[in-house]
Amino acid sequence: MSTPTSPLLEPAAPSAPAILDRCRELVRPALVEAIGELHPWTGEMAAFALGWRDTTGVPASDASEGKGVRQALAVLGAEAAGADGEAATAGAVAVELIHTFSLLHDDVMDGDGTRRRRETVWKAYGTGPAVLAGDALFALAMQTLAEACPTRPAALPRLCATLTELVRGQTEDLLFESRPWTGPNAVRPDEYRAMAERKTGALLGCAGALGALLGGAPPATVTALDQAGRHLGVAFQAIDDLLSLQGDPTRTGKPVHSDLQNGKKTYPVLSALAKGDHTSQELAQLLNSPTPLDHAALTQAATLIEETGGTTATRTEATHHLTAAHTHLHTTPLTPQATRDLTTLTTHLHHRTT
Amino acid sequence: MSTPTSPLLEPAAPSAPAILDRCRELVRPALVEAIGELHPWTGEMAAFALGWRDTTGVPASDASEGKGVRQALAVLGAEAAGADGEAATAGAVAVELIHTFSLLHDDVMDGDGTRRRRETVWKAYGTGPAVLAGDALFALAMQTLAEACPTRPAALPRLCATLTELVRGQTEDLLFESRPWTGPNAVRPDEYRAMAERKTGALLGCAGALGALLGGAPPATVTALDQAGRHLGVAFQAIDDLLSLQGDPTRTGKPVHSDLQNGKKTYPVLSALAKGDHTSQELAQLLNSPTPLDHAALTQAATLIEETGGTTATRTEATHHLTAAHTHLHTTPLTPQATRDLTTLTTHLHHRTT
Repeated sequence: MSTPTSPLLEPAAPSAPAILDRCRELVRPALVEAIGELHPWTGEMAAFALGWRDTTGVPASDASEGKGVRQALAVLGAEAAGADGEAATAGAVAVELIHTFSLLHDDVMDGDGTRRRRETVWKAYGTGPAVLAGDALFALAMQTLAEACPTRPAALPRLCATLTELVRGQTEDLLFESRPWTGPNAVRPDEYRAMAERKTGALLGCAGALGALLGGAPPATVTALDQAGRHLGVAFQAIDDLLSLQGDPTRTGKPVHSDLQNGKKTYPVLSALAKGDHTSQELAQLLNSPTPLDHAALTQAATLIEETGGTTATRTEATHHLTAAHTHLHTTPLTPQATRDLTTLTTHLHHRTT
Repeated sequence: MSTPTSPLLEPAAPSAPAILDRCRELVRPALVEAIGELHPWTGEMAAFALGWRDTTGVPASDASEGKGVRQALAVLGAEAAGADGEAATAGAVAVELIHTFSLLHDDVMDGDGTRRRRETVWKAYGTGPAVLAGDALFALAMQTLAEACPTRPAALPRLCATLTELVRGQTEDLLFESRPWTGPNAVRPDEYRAMAERKTGALLGCAGALGALLGGAPPATVTALDQAGRHLGVAFQAIDDLLSLQGDPTRTGKPVHSDLQNGKKTYPVLSALAKGDHTSQELAQLLNSPTPLDHAALTQAATLIEETGGTTATRTEATHHLTAAHTHLHTTPLTPQATRDLTTLTTHLHHRTT
């Protein structure tokens, strides 16, 4: 006869913020150590970009820090393979550094002056220094992974391949801005998905895969975590698009409707335009206006996107990719605790808009 | 009795331009193939940066192309180890791409609008695209090396370490500009040397070392080529400083005295100021002037640097490092042909000012 488990002894499943906190605390010492290896000047800009310090070196509020999703995926990747989360540390540091590098350079390219309710690095320190700090961060990412894992020769080439994809995704995203909203040259939804997978999914996939690799996982586990991260990335990008469209700036940290204003081809707009109904045509006419859209026009565009089902379609798209991510996690033999935490975390990210 | 060798059968030692041409031809197909893997937009900017095309896609004149010193060092590094030069191809491509990346981003940071008598990439395509093209080039460099040499696991970590050094050197060079010409905060010659070794020497050293590594050389050979390249880099930087000071813009490809005007701490100026004699003090007074230096003042500064021995001291410094480079080449067992070619090439680079 089996003894029933006492509810008092059964640990409660941790919440997503608790998972993020645990992983952040685990990785933090190594991340601090890595940043400490930078030249003091690029180190100062890196600490500002990571939300640790303001421009005068004073510790910043927690609200300036990123969620740390990538480091968490790396830690959970190692745990999914049955290893200690610490096995993933170098990989977790590397993906957080690559993420920070890409934000720094993307803000220069996009001309975005605000991120997480603060000035962006180029706005606070100048364009040249921001480019330099980004370069220092990616070099540090590579160096950290190269030094930490000579016994895992597949780790560094995987990060290199991810970097190539990430830059290509950013290239496509930038070029999409100058493409028309309608007509034969308009951005197709499949092009958007491929861009989102490269720009956002590749690094999320790499995070879990690197963690698994460093934890000694077999190739099938590494692939499953990579695939799950890629789908999560597409879902993540779609939700981000939605937040930027609807969002109040205090949550998104950037001006409302800035994506629409910049001609960014986001999923809600693309799917609204693809509908082809009367509202959709009205939206197309508005967006194709030769004069820049003022506040009233931007608000009207957002309403039309909502009316023609762009918002719903985006939620459906995100849910589809979240489900695909979960399928990868549940059809691969991973440790039950890591599967549970990965599911909790990815579901939480998906529900940011609700 | 030995048969005397017929002078007709003895091949003449190739000149430095012939060595550079041979190595360029050997590496070119792989470099073209690598650039072909880029997104067409970043690929276009890369071809422009490499001097292959103008902004309209028309093939550019040969004068726009770099010397290709780094790819040559990689090829000669493999040959020095007794391997075929082709063994070094992936390493040669990687170092040329890293060099091109660093020029692209450095021009953004320095605000330089001219390089090799043409517009720089940011001037021709915009700052954001130039940052992106640089990012694409370093990712491609890493990727090329990662894919090509799974059997040489030491190659990629070496390139990562070099990248870290290179970015640190650029950081120091930028910060030197805002340091004073004189007083306790002035840049010391040993600080300059350390910066030049990181900014220029590390990649030249890495080129030869990577070639040797890929050619299967023992660690001592790899180290010797790395050390030789580092000394060559310091010599190279000193000569570059001199060319920029004296040079006619048609040879240097950048405006005369632009370094002086930007407050760049170059070796001729630092050594002239270190002299401490009357002329040196006059130079210090001129450079410390609170108003920006006009053409007449810049010309006078150049004359004072010459008079107080700054030019001679720079040549002496360059010769010292060239000799040190040669010592490394001649005290290590390398193939005689590669030793000869490396000596010819490095000596040629040193004589650019005469």
